[in-house]
Amino acid sequence: MRQGRKKTTLKDVANAVGVHVSTVSRALDERTRHMITAEVADKIIKVSRELDYSPNAAAYSLRTNRTRLIGVFIPDITNPIFPPIIRGIEDTLGRRNYIAIVVNTEGTATRESALINTLRGREIDGMIVASVERQDKAIDELVEAGIAVVTVNRRVDSPHVSSVVNDEHDGMRRVLAHLMSLGHSRIVGIAGPQGLSTGKIRHEAFQHFRKALGLSSDPGTVVFADRFNENEGERCMERLLARDVDFTAIVASNDRLAIGALTALKRHGIDCPSDVSVTGFNDMYLSDRIDPPLTTVRIQQYEVGLRAAEALLRHIDAGEEIAEPVHDVLPVELVVRQSTAPLAKT
Amino acid sequence: MRQGRKKTTLKDVANAVGVHVSTVSRALDERTRHMITAEVADKIIKVSRELDYSPNAAAYSLRTNRTRLIGVFIPDITNPIFPPIIRGIEDTLGRRNYIAIVVNTEGTATRESALINTLRGREIDGMIVASVERQDKAIDELVEAGIAVVTVNRRVDSPHVSSVVNDEHDGMRRVLAHLMSLGHSRIVGIAGPQGLSTGKIRHEAFQHFRKALGLSSDPGTVVFADRFNENEGERCMERLLARDVDFTAIVASNDRLAIGALTALKRHGIDCPSDVSVTGFNDMYLSDRIDPPLTTVRIQQYEVGLRAAEALLRHIDAGEEIAEPVHDVLPVELVVRQSTAPLAKT
Repeated sequence: MRQGRKKTTLKDVANAVGVHVSTVSRALDERTRHMITAEVADKIIKVSRELDYSPNAAAYSLRTNRTRLIGVFIPDITNPIFPPIIRGIEDTLGRRNYIAIVVNTEGTATRESALINTLRGREIDGMIVASVERQDKAIDELVEAGIAVVTVNRRVDSPHVSSVVNDEHDGMRRVLAHLMSLGHSRIVGIAGPQGLSTGKIRHEAFQHFRKALGLSSDPGTVVFADRFNENEGERCMERLLARDVDFTAIVASNDRLAIGALTALKRHGIDCPSDVSVTGFNDMYLSDRIDPPLTTVRIQQYEVGLRAAEALLRHIDAGEEIAEPVHDVLPVELVVRQSTAPLAKT
Repeated sequence: MRQGRKKTTLKDVANAVGVHVSTVSRALDERTRHMITAEVADKIIKVSRELDYSPNAAAYSLRTNRTRLIGVFIPDITNPIFPPIIRGIEDTLGRRNYIAIVVNTEGTATRESALINTLRGREIDGMIVASVERQDKAIDELVEAGIAVVTVNRRVDSPHVSSVVNDEHDGMRRVLAHLMSLGHSRIVGIAGPQGLSTGKIRHEAFQHFRKALGLSSDPGTVVFADRFNENEGERCMERLLARDVDFTAIVASNDRLAIGALTALKRHGIDCPSDVSVTGFNDMYLSDRIDPPLTTVRIQQYEVGLRAAEALLRHIDAGEEIAEPVHDVLPVELVVRQSTAPLAKT
């Protein structure tokens, strides 16, 4: 082993050949070499030898320095949007012989932090984190330590951590435009937890577009949920009903909150959609099968997982020289079902 | 280190004191000592010293020989019955400072086997497997190798592997008794995969009780699904409708198959429950919210996970002398909702 000279990295080879580091990585790994043309592979192998970065050393590094295990942090595994995200992650990692190990943080920063430390001790190659809060010390520490991290579905406020998320802002715009087109103008909100990017951005967009459309954006017309679940949706709906607020439509920050709201409405004999319209967000599993089928914003659950895994693998391939953070925002669409209806003539 | 003499085990200490191995384990671990009385803890520490099994050695063993990681194998994470099972496992493991790492086998034996080998390499302390098939070589090998394994929700045919499952047989009995009480006698079935204990036992019980109740158990009145999902339920329902079979009720082997059946029925203009009744199995998340709310068998999803983790920890505590396999069968109940109705007078 030569001392006193900087070790040749994958990136050096990539720069010398003029290809991406992931291409070099594939060329030097017999299992993935078929994914690129023989011509390029040959050139990479030649250059890597000239630079004293032999395919054998690369293979050795793959065998010893990498565990090929990726930690995947989920805030609440009982939320049905996460399984398709996990599938997208697993399918992408699987193609590169990486394995996802999924841990459930139950939405607490303490538990997330403890689990991250445990998995760091197990020499995980990287982490995909769906459980992040907007301010997340555990994630900051990982990134400072040079560990490959990508957040999925949510993001931290800091721009230093790569993320793949959904276009919450545009989703909320579509919801409000749809309700206005049905004649609704007295629209109240059940907002999600404000410590999470999803809850925060959806709420800001809700307020922004209510104002932009000339609707009341009185703070008294919004109740904040502590968690994204049915019980909280029910509790928030009860609070809205207890207030002296007149409304014809309810915008919930996700589908589970909307389902809870429907439960509370039914208890009070208020019919959806003939008395009030209700919207959700996410288009989670079975939101088309509940009664009434839910009008909601379809996020690309599988795709967001897939892209997050791709982003993570790019970071891992880049090795020590972690690439610039990437921020990917996937488009959403509105799915209109029977929980929204034209404003009843009174 | 003394040679030529059998090392004192936790079980030796347990036998000498007259307590369960888990009590010894708790007494010798400072973090869990508070869970037992000071008197018993003192006695255990005293005896463990006499037998040359010092608390320090035990603590050392906990730190070095145990990773405190438990592999949890799920066949299909998009099936909503598994998240509550995972919760039950995690809550139980968490109380003993173990961490569950969840892997998704996508229901293939090849992938399950590859993942098991990967995690064995990571020195996992034990495995809880929801993904087993009735014949499962990978599981047999684990048990032969002395690795602590418990199957959950499903079991292998061999009695050598501990399991915590639901009373499928009694569940099917309750379904058929309910349908008969509503006047149904022409009852067809959508059976689950026969390579899985759930699919097999539910189907056998369906045939057994149809015969016992004097109903037709003609094989032509059952279609077998390849997987437990909505698409297969739809396909099987289409096949039943294409056959020249007269029926008024459909018993599906799980809720997802029932939901698929409802889709196919709706497409043919057949109303549930006024034309036909439909039943599921599991009482999965949102089965009470779909249209119509599903009559189904409630299995104890959280509890089955909790008990499986307890059984696994007992095996781990027993150390080298793996305890006898345990087979726990949890009771189920029938939940009657609107997808079943009295036979229409014609």
